[in-house]
Amino acid sequence: MNDRQDDQRDGNAAARALVAGVCAGDRRALARAITLVESTRPEDAAVAEAVVEALLPYAGNGLRIAVSGAPGAGKSIFIEAFGLHLVQQGHRVAVLAIDPSSPRSGGAILGDKTRMDRLARDERAFIRPTPSAGTLGGVALATGEAITLVEAAGFDRVLVETVGVGQSETAAADLTDMFLLLVAPGSGDELQGVKRGIVELADLIVVTKGDGDLKPAAGRVAADYHAALGLMRGAVPGWTPRVERCSAFTGEGIPRIADAIEAFRAATAGWRDRLRAEQARRGLDRALADAIDRALGADARLAGLRAALEAEVASGRRGPRAAARALVAGLLDRDASGSA
Amino acid sequence: MNDRQDDQRDGNAAARALVAGVCAGDRRALARAITLVESTRPEDAAVAEAVVEALLPYAGNGLRIAVSGAPGAGKSIFIEAFGLHLVQQGHRVAVLAIDPSSPRSGGAILGDKTRMDRLARDERAFIRPTPSAGTLGGVALATGEAITLVEAAGFDRVLVETVGVGQSETAAADLTDMFLLLVAPGSGDELQGVKRGIVELADLIVVTKGDGDLKPAAGRVAADYHAALGLMRGAVPGWTPRVERCSAFTGEGIPRIADAIEAFRAATAGWRDRLRAEQARRGLDRALADAIDRALGADARLAGLRAALEAEVASGRRGPRAAARALVAGLLDRDASGSA
Repeated sequence: MNDRQDDQRDGNAAARALVAGVCAGDRRALARAITLVESTRPEDAAVAEAVVEALLPYAGNGLRIAVSGAPGAGKSIFIEAFGLHLVQQGHRVAVLAIDPSSPRSGGAILGDKTRMDRLARDERAFIRPTPSAGTLGGVALATGEAITLVEAAGFDRVLVETVGVGQSETAAADLTDMFLLLVAPGSGDELQGVKRGIVELADLIVVTKGDGDLKPAAGRVAADYHAALGLMRGAVPGWTPRVERCSAFTGEGIPRIADAIEAFRAATAGWRDRLRAEQARRGLDRALADAIDRALGADARLAGLRAALEAEVASGRRGPRAAARALVAGLLDRDASGSA
Repeated sequence: MNDRQDDQRDGNAAARALVAGVCAGDRRALARAITLVESTRPEDAAVAEAVVEALLPYAGNGLRIAVSGAPGAGKSIFIEAFGLHLVQQGHRVAVLAIDPSSPRSGGAILGDKTRMDRLARDERAFIRPTPSAGTLGGVALATGEAITLVEAAGFDRVLVETVGVGQSETAAADLTDMFLLLVAPGSGDELQGVKRGIVELADLIVVTKGDGDLKPAAGRVAADYHAALGLMRGAVPGWTPRVERCSAFTGEGIPRIADAIEAFRAATAGWRDRLRAEQARRGLDRALADAIDRALGADARLAGLRAALEAEVASGRRGPRAAARALVAGLLDRDASGSA
């Protein structure tokens, strides 16, 4: 038996142990499996794939909920209060995060366990901090696989937290059944306020911080968003987007938000399968880009060709389309010199 | 001589004619060349590539400016007033648009010639309406090539208009040297106001509609954004983002905005080459995804494999990563059955 066969046997054994652990609800196995799907190391890819494939039949029963909002909207404290309410209702709650660092702005800390202290210590909940930065496609792929893993481990409410800065919203919407948009009352709303494009994604708008001095302002903001929603057509058949207010501090409004989410779940059951099928197709596109990247990186000749073409494109000597055609030709082992 | 050689000879002749026309500043040749790079028809790809490659040495001398803002910010009327000012200063102005329709929200009409009536009739300007909807990557690739074409045709100020709904902002920022964000004063600002992530992209914020009843509100909005900019670090070395007010109706403020753009151009000359090199590398990634798509679509066996894998992924029988690996294996002509 050679090294390669040894590696494969070890990989198979590792995959089997992780699959068994995740199915049994073992939190350490779950955490290790998620680390594996987040890994960009080539040697982890086969085991990650095997684990996800084996667990796929046990996933799909959770309701997947994106929780979005600008920094300062109160996402972490809302997730703590809302998550505790859900576990008290008998659910098991997983919290994931999607936060691809943008080229210009830095990343933000999500899934911050220190702000979700009580939920983090509850054994009916599982909180996973944001993965280290990567490409949007790679992070979205890993987060989609993490959803499969936590559902297979028995978590039936999956919250996907996302920072409110553009691209990550679209990625989060593409991985979830329902989109919650959190907005806070208070000064500076015209700057931290969300854009129409994001409001259009929302199935439920949650106005946070509805307590103390901010309570009247929360009411006004809720009325504004209610009016704005009236101007938009809902994105989901059978569901009219709505606005709810809450205070994570007093707990007021949290049960009504849980009720709204159950109402959404009931009203959209038939549509959900179609949505997920469409999401899976787009997931394949992302995974394909990721796999091509890996294939180009794994072959020294192709990696060299890519570097040379990148240099030509960067210096303006060749256009992106021509360089991409040469790279695909190289990948397909054809004559890469081009003709045209 | 066979059909294929005939086709190639015809393609070469067509490319040569377009290249000569664009270089001579022939508007009809320019319009036809842009149509060609926007085309998704396989038979257009070779000529489009040949035209872009031939014109690449003549491009790069323009200043590329993204003009973004939510619907209602007054983009079209601003571009008309600003574009006319630029041509009066001796520039030649091209207006392009980038507007990939999002999965949920519909598209918006950009580069609307009816709202840019005077600019559209000026022979020193060239306005190109938004291309028909496509994938974000495909539209961004085509817009990048359109920039090459208009610059080769002698246009030295290239405005890339974009609707303010998320993804297209990032794409526009990735194709341009400078990012203008337009915001309007008035009621409903807390909803149409832009998000922090977009404000962070802005090198210059333009508060529009600074005339008549809205003039005082415009001043307040300008002060708010000025304060907000103070909290952010600028993205471009040597340039501090600023806020300017204008009225496209009275013309007030338009020359100051033109001055600010020239100041940006002068202050960032050294940095611009590095920025464009980095943008070109990301452009290669987009073009690569587009080329893989074409390669999969052009081969009946691969198109069938892709359809079968899509169906498996959509029904939850296979994960995206495993399906992508099988598809890449098929593309590379290796054993597609997988081993793991």
